[in-house]
Amino acid sequence: MKKFTSVSDIENLQQIIKKALQIKENPLSETEKGKGKTIGLVFLNSSLRTRLSSQIAAQNLGLNVLTLNAAQEAWNLEFADGAVMDGNTVEHIKDAIEVLNQYCDIIAVRCFAGMKNKEDDVNESILSQFEKHAKVPVISLESATRHPLQSLADCITITENWNEERKPKVVLTWAPHIKPIAHAVGNSFTEWMQEMDVDFVITNPEGYDLDKNFTKDTTVIHNQEEAFKDADFIYVKNWSSFDDYAEMPEVKEDWMLTNEKLKNTNNAKVMHCLPVRRNLELSDEVMDGENSIIYQQAKNRIFSAQTVFSEILDEINSGK
Amino acid sequence: MKKFTSVSDIENLQQIIKKALQIKENPLSETEKGKGKTIGLVFLNSSLRTRLSSQIAAQNLGLNVLTLNAAQEAWNLEFADGAVMDGNTVEHIKDAIEVLNQYCDIIAVRCFAGMKNKEDDVNESILSQFEKHAKVPVISLESATRHPLQSLADCITITENWNEERKPKVVLTWAPHIKPIAHAVGNSFTEWMQEMDVDFVITNPEGYDLDKNFTKDTTVIHNQEEAFKDADFIYVKNWSSFDDYAEMPEVKEDWMLTNEKLKNTNNAKVMHCLPVRRNLELSDEVMDGENSIIYQQAKNRIFSAQTVFSEILDEINSGK
Amino acid sequence: MKKFTSVSDIENLQQIIKKALQIKENPLSETEKGKGKTIGLVFLNSSLRTRLSSQIAAQNLGLNVLTLNAAQEAWNLEFADGAVMDGNTVEHIKDAIEVLNQYCDIIAVRCFAGMKNKEDDVNESILSQFEKHAKVPVISLESATRHPLQSLADCITITENWNEERKPKVVLTWAPHIKPIAHAVGNSFTEWMQEMDVDFVITNPEGYDLDKNFTKDTTVIHNQEEAFKDADFIYVKNWSSFDDYAEMPEVKEDWMLTNEKLKNTNNAKVMHCLPVRRNLELSDEVMDGENSIIYQQAKNRIFSAQTVFSEILDEINSGK
Repeated sequence: MKKFTSVSDIENLQQIIKKALQIKENPLSETEKGKGKTIGLVFLNSSLRTRLSSQIAAQNLGLNVLTLNAAQEAWNLEFADGAVMDGNTVEHIKDAIEVLNQYCDIIAVRCFAGMKNKEDDVNESILSQFEKHAKVPVISLESATRHPLQSLADCITITENWNEERKPKVVLTWAPHIKPIAHAVGNSFTEWMQEMDVDFVITNPEGYDLDKNFTKDTTVIHNQEEAFKDADFIYVKNWSSFDDYAEMPEVKEDWMLTNEKLKNTNNAKVMHCLPVRRNLELSDEVMDGENSIIYQQAKNRIFSAQTVFSEILDEINSGK
Repeated sequence: MKKFTSVSDIENLQQIIKKALQIKENPLSETEKGKGKTIGLVFLNSSLRTRLSSQIAAQNLGLNVLTLNAAQEAWNLEFADGAVMDGNTVEHIKDAIEVLNQYCDIIAVRCFAGMKNKEDDVNESILSQFEKHAKVPVISLESATRHPLQSLADCITITENWNEERKPKVVLTWAPHIKPIAHAVGNSFTEWMQEMDVDFVITNPEGYDLDKNFTKDTTVIHNQEEAFKDADFIYVKNWSSFDDYAEMPEVKEDWMLTNEKLKNTNNAKVMHCLPVRRNLELSDEVMDGENSIIYQQAKNRIFSAQTVFSEILDEINSGK
Repeated sequence: MKKFTSVSDIENLQQIIKKALQIKENPLSETEKGKGKTIGLVFLNSSLRTRLSSQIAAQNLGLNVLTLNAAQEAWNLEFADGAVMDGNTVEHIKDAIEVLNQYCDIIAVRCFAGMKNKEDDVNESILSQFEKHAKVPVISLESATRHPLQSLADCITITENWNEERKPKVVLTWAPHIKPIAHAVGNSFTEWMQEMDVDFVITNPEGYDLDKNFTKDTTVIHNQEEAFKDADFIYVKNWSSFDDYAEMPEVKEDWMLTNEKLKNTNNAKVMHCLPVRRNLELSDEVMDGENSIIYQQAKNRIFSAQTVFSEILDEINSGK
């Protein structure tokens, strides 16, 4: 694996999931693989799971870890090419990346959507700079349009929780929120499910359809009850409007996931990437109930990260 | 030791102090004990000594350390059970703790008193959530009502500085401050001194008596001069009113510790947990003088933490 | 080496540069040297390169690293001797340093000039406290008047890029900025160049002469074009007025470095300590052009730090 910013960086998804499950069995089986190498974890945004799971994964592989809270610890970054830097920005992202090239064997970066300029977000205005200027492998710790380490953890979790021969029905459902939230998790889960051997359906209110470049020919249903019928997995996530970018068109129905709604499913397992707003996105009873596999999903973030770091180290060590 | 949030988690205090002194002699005697295990250090508040000494202690034991500045690096936490999270809080403490359960073998947390709602503080509204939801051992790095790693360091320090057969007289004295300060250090020192073989006295102005649940039958004297007579150790610390919670009733006498006041003692050693406000809580001459054992006390924070981590690792490794 | 806060802490500069180049060849040749020892990296200011390169250097030597963002993570510090601490400051720098003495084998600190009080800055009001109170070796990660780890990296970079017998001509040129910037890099580069076997010239606008205590008998030319003639290295850096402290007297000529201006040189290599404001201090074409050795310079920060840490560890290990 040369880099990891979307599902297209994976050659064989089933094989990667299998490797992740082996790592989960024995997380300390490759403690020498990263020796003498350094991974830089660059956070342009808040993080709990990604921060901790990436550190654990790196330590399990013997990697040195440099964690940088870019905004608080370093300098205010400029992103515009050709900018005359006579304003608030102190360092150009290009130069920060070039320095990271000098210091790290792998660069991992978290750079959320700004939710202000649709084009900037769709074009991954920040991650694209890393992809362009990095001379070492780049790993996304969530970018404007995708959260692939989360999605791999989601695939691992679904695999662990399914042992029937038939395909499971997986439903990604929109959930309420109070602020305009980015599309990264929804997009990313969508493109990974399209690669999995599952029946995948998205349900969201009118006006909240995800970017067609991600949903492609996936079924989108605007009636949650209909979508939930016979669901084996329900993935709960909010996002704001994509068409009317970052707006929150009024939603009249109640989209919060409750135990009542689960009755309509095939005793579906409930997933969420966290953090979750309880009693807004889903009820306490769901979160704390037997159907939730949300904490298991969080734990799998370690093995998702460790698998990716391990694959990237293989590439580095092979000198390709 | 299954957890460490108060003196009651200690079976045999003398034995723990003895172990701490052995670790101080040879801090690198157990570098394999924590191998492959992870301690999460979660800071909801500022920290210098606790932060650094905990990291050193963990490294000395070969533990992986995850340090999380929760407020700045992760998400704004919700503490109320059953809350409809449609406000500023992004993640419920329960969920953050469940994730830490997945990632850590030990969870250590610093969560000061809010000093706004007496009941919340007395009931340890934050630490209690950790004690309730953590599935791995919990260590307090100072909570609303106690600072046990400090108190253990205090016991180590007194032990090192006392070799007479008679019991030493130990005085905890209130000191002036400009802001309402929490009771954790005062309470905690009190309950640990009650377990030590010392004559223990508290002195503070009227209106500043500590919580009776901590002071119990300990002598409380409102006249500092009287309390200081024949003292062997004087522990300086400010706290606000407990009865009139977080208020600062007027104090007419001068309670700052000075060399002049030390004359009235048995050449008492002076202690403080730090940070200290010089020339307000105690004078420069005391801080920089021969009677101060304050920096030694700070150093012992390493061995206090290392002893506790080591005991907890013993419990984990024994698979109890 | 007993400490490292200026060039005067170096006995033999050529030998140090040689050692640094050997370390660059084989950075993992001394991974046991720092085992069981702890370096505290204390940041009172922002940092990217210094933060990361110091961590890498320390890890390469097997040192434990404690990183402290003092302002955000610890307490608001008091710097005035004898202060009655009844205001905003919570801990005296003396006490913080004494605690670091207890916890660390080496203390490294970043403490920029405040740019408000000339005397405070010239007298290194913060670093001097570390030099006075530290009982372990102190390393400057940039102070009010100097940035010696940067200057050593600069010397390494010049050495790598020069293989003619004649002395190279090195020009330190002032560059435009929008804010009053400190003199540390300019001063420091000046005093290190005075020790190197180079022809060294400084060029800056009238009103921007550096402190005479640093420039000494170095030639200062107020005409950039004249200074650039036959230059082999051009070091670009802004600083505010020293005489009219922290002011920015008007500059009418254009001092930004461009390719056009490079034509006037001996195909000079371009240096900058970073962060750089593109198209203000120097043009994109220079930054991204063939003459720039700026990223190489950034990389050499690792070997500069590692050499200094290694020398200090030699001193500690020899028990001198």
